[in-house]
Amino acid sequence: MALDENWYTEIHTDAGSAFSLKVRRKLHDEQSEYQRIEVFETEGYGRLMTIDGLVMLSDRDNFIYHEMMTHPALFSHPRPRRVVIVGGGDCGTLREVLKHPEVESAVQVEIDERVTRVSEQFFPALCGSNGDPRAEFFFGDGIRWMKEAEPGSIDVIIIDSTDPVGPAKGLFSEPFYRDCLRALGEDGLLAQQSESPLYHSTSIIRPMHDEMRKSGFLDTLTLFYPQPVYPSGWWSTTLAAKSAPVAFLREEQCEQKCFETHYYNDAIHRAAMAVPEFVRRELLG
Amino acid sequence: MALDENWYTEIHTDAGSAFSLKVRRKLHDEQSEYQRIEVFETEGYGRLMTIDGLVMLSDRDNFIYHEMMTHPALFSHPRPRRVVIVGGGDCGTLREVLKHPEVESAVQVEIDERVTRVSEQFFPALCGSNGDPRAEFFFGDGIRWMKEAEPGSIDVIIIDSTDPVGPAKGLFSEPFYRDCLRALGEDGLLAQQSESPLYHSTSIIRPMHDEMRKSGFLDTLTLFYPQPVYPSGWWSTTLAAKSAPVAFLREEQCEQKCFETHYYNDAIHRAAMAVPEFVRRELLG
Repeated sequence: MALDENWYTEIHTDAGSAFSLKVRRKLHDEQSEYQRIEVFETEGYGRLMTIDGLVMLSDRDNFIYHEMMTHPALFSHPRPRRVVIVGGGDCGTLREVLKHPEVESAVQVEIDERVTRVSEQFFPALCGSNGDPRAEFFFGDGIRWMKEAEPGSIDVIIIDSTDPVGPAKGLFSEPFYRDCLRALGEDGLLAQQSESPLYHSTSIIRPMHDEMRKSGFLDTLTLFYPQPVYPSGWWSTTLAAKSAPVAFLREEQCEQKCFETHYYNDAIHRAAMAVPEFVRRELLG
Repeated sequence: MALDENWYTEIHTDAGSAFSLKVRRKLHDEQSEYQRIEVFETEGYGRLMTIDGLVMLSDRDNFIYHEMMTHPALFSHPRPRRVVIVGGGDCGTLREVLKHPEVESAVQVEIDERVTRVSEQFFPALCGSNGDPRAEFFFGDGIRWMKEAEPGSIDVIIIDSTDPVGPAKGLFSEPFYRDCLRALGEDGLLAQQSESPLYHSTSIIRPMHDEMRKSGFLDTLTLFYPQPVYPSGWWSTTLAAKSAPVAFLREEQCEQKCFETHYYNDAIHRAAMAVPEFVRRELLG
């Protein structure tokens, strides 16, 4: 069946697949200094934000991604007080970070202020914690920000960026990881979105582990979860620990967490660490 | 971006989403006694089989579904000797079942012989165990077959059917489950595909648990896994046990399994049992 002009479609060229959402109307369209930002009202997924034609998030399923980018890292650090988010302009990751009472400061370092302003307007639920006194916003280049960060000043870095093409490419490479490592404290942890296990195990996930370890991170681990609006509907977050085994989990606090989630819980945390057979082979191979 | 006529698209009307694969050419198209069966050669997913316009399987990702329909059930039964597959005409589930050396007989009860013949022609890898002396083929109505099955004669029933519409609807209801329960031996186990956790938790998964328990099954459990070509890219198998807790796992045999898989392993088995927060609420609610 063909799709008429009432559908938004993202084509995943290398995989020969495409994902589409039926659209009621376009709510917003702007060319910012960095990229084209669009917002659509869809039939079944609530609102949809795209950047340069790629799906960033939908109301319906962003909870999975934002929770899996945040809570595993924060419950794997013994005392996450100082958190920095690189990217994450829609503020959904920031909101999840601020659910943790241990967090004393959360800095969102987003290159494009317009993404945050558009999110405030069209995705108010994601921005519900922007007024939290622990939240800080810096709009500028995350790579330069990290280069200039005070050594040992961060507990958890979350890299919530677009795909490793264009301006985000530098966020997937050894020089940036070295700067992250220096900025992290002793038990420091880094979490980065690492694309689709089906499409990118050898092209992105395995090189990411290699680059992180070459940069000096002691241990790395990829977590797997569904994400319907992203290519293949299956996604991953890769964790890197500065000096401790990364599979550590503050079990009691996690099991008795004092906030609500929609995907994440302690069983899901442990489950996300299970590596499918073909991924295991592709990461080792 | 619009998709031209070189794409095969399945629209998921209720969800307002669609999944597409780029097609090189159509290899087969027939109207069988029961349904329209088509086979395409795609750009990135190998061959694709559709029935009545719905994706059944692709070369690239069917391994996840077939493994998760089979190995969790077989490793959760203490001694699975006699297995019956209802549906499963493409023979992929049968192939996985026959990897277990404990299995003495595996009967595939498929209503449409043409699905199996088309699969033999276009998906030979899935049919690689059809010549196994333990394999039996019965082409006919699974509901009637189960009604007439000898009580206590089956260890594991796998219901590998299309969606619960049309002829498959009866496979999702109490009378059929009662017949399954009677046909199962003491430690008997049933495994059934139960659609998308995101789209069908309240409409299909929860009623399935209810019907299974009303039919007399002691315990039920849903397993979650990615399946890129199915609606939402996220899928599930629901297990029902006649007389024992269904989360049982033959740990040692599973950890040291004597055959190769591409998705399943013991960690994945345990991980698939983790229930996301919103699903837990929707199953209880």
